[in-house]
Amino acid sequence: MPDRFPVTPVNRVRRMPDRGHYDRATIHAILDAALLCHIAYVIDGRPCCMPTSFWREGEHLYWHGSSASRMIRTQAQGIDLCLTVTHLDALVMARSGFHHSVNYRSAMVFGQARAVEDMEEKRALMDRLVDRIYPGRSSLIRPPNASEVRATSIMRMEIETASAKIRDKHVSDDETDYADVPAWTALYPVTQVLGAPSLCPRQQPGLERPAGMADFAPGARLDEVMTATWRRSFG
Amino acid sequence: MPDRFPVTPVNRVRRMPDRGHYDRATIHAILDAALLCHIAYVIDGRPCCMPTSFWREGEHLYWHGSSASRMIRTQAQGIDLCLTVTHLDALVMARSGFHHSVNYRSAMVFGQARAVEDMEEKRALMDRLVDRIYPGRSSLIRPPNASEVRATSIMRMEIETASAKIRDKHVSDDETDYADVPAWTALYPVTQVLGAPSLCPRQQPGLERPAGMADFAPGARLDEVMTATWRRSFG
Repeated sequence: MPDRFPVTPVNRVRRMPDRGHYDRATIHAILDAALLCHIAYVIDGRPCCMPTSFWREGEHLYWHGSSASRMIRTQAQGIDLCLTVTHLDALVMARSGFHHSVNYRSAMVFGQARAVEDMEEKRALMDRLVDRIYPGRSSLIRPPNASEVRATSIMRMEIETASAKIRDKHVSDDETDYADVPAWTALYPVTQVLGAPSLCPRQQPGLERPAGMADFAPGARLDEVMTATWRRSFG
Repeated sequence: MPDRFPVTPVNRVRRMPDRGHYDRATIHAILDAALLCHIAYVIDGRPCCMPTSFWREGEHLYWHGSSASRMIRTQAQGIDLCLTVTHLDALVMARSGFHHSVNYRSAMVFGQARAVEDMEEKRALMDRLVDRIYPGRSSLIRPPNASEVRATSIMRMEIETASAKIRDKHVSDDETDYADVPAWTALYPVTQVLGAPSLCPRQQPGLERPAGMADFAPGARLDEVMTATWRRSFG
């Protein structure tokens, strides 16, 4: 398998092409640092942009939904999908409106999905849906019962093609503006962080936080926690 | 104008309908707390999910792009769009995989967009594109020049219909699992926060942070900053 996706009319980064990336390692890293994505698909002739949790295994992406869901039944027909992940990393001010920007890492993945039909495979994926976020947790909780397995659909999409787009730099102004425009100008980092856990009010007494939760430190960056837990489960 | 959007096949929240909201105040609050959205649209027959910054004024949403962009030229034809905002508020563990969840506030807006053609209106919107995030900043920086105005397209979409979906509760398990499953279980808050500003390395000496940046405190929540700056600019 080649390290880079071929650049085609579907995945080519047209605006700011210097920010475009097509290598699998960069794209996978953006995907594996995320809990949520947005999926664009067409339903009843109209585009819909749906947020959902997802995860990657090799060259496949997985997400779940209710088996009764119109979204799932529509997607399962194998229609074209576009799954996008965006990490906002900084607000970047400038000396002109034109050069105000944000730092970000985004990945756009194209393909078609199908529902996983094999029951044993689906059960295993339902465990990994939990373990991808909380490593080892599926063995500490009640396993899915038959009605939960029936009510849940797991979608699988092979990555047909993809690209990433990254801005990772400081203020960048027109050369003459640095001297001509006396404006206070800065970059503000933006991070998504965990707070301190709030225990379930009906927690049984005497339980300790499981070892699998070690990455979930108050103040930890969610993208770093998701990367660490992904590696523990699949790396 | 009614306070609520009529519930139609386009905007109806089908899964977990108790999480659905159709009142403008709830939907506007979710939109105005966000810097970024994802827009689903169809291009060359395939759905595409594009992250971009945006803002709301009344019943219209605005975003910008390069006038040369294929995305902008396609959207400007008045095709159907779906613009979605998602705030992730917490990771919610449970005693079964089925009840693992996240707390979130999302809004899904449907409509068609057009490029703003009037040059004076476009110039004013280009200022508000900056001021929406940094109140008053457009008067402190170099105004857009003619080539920047030409190179920028501002898209305007009237909100045709919309809905919000919110989960805002603690762990919620099957009743029998509280006693039967001895699993440590918690909710982890998730917030997106600003860091300390990194000044432009080519800053002119003697400049002070402008008064309009007062909301940008290190550690402040981005959704709260965006809500405060929106109110200062449009409230």
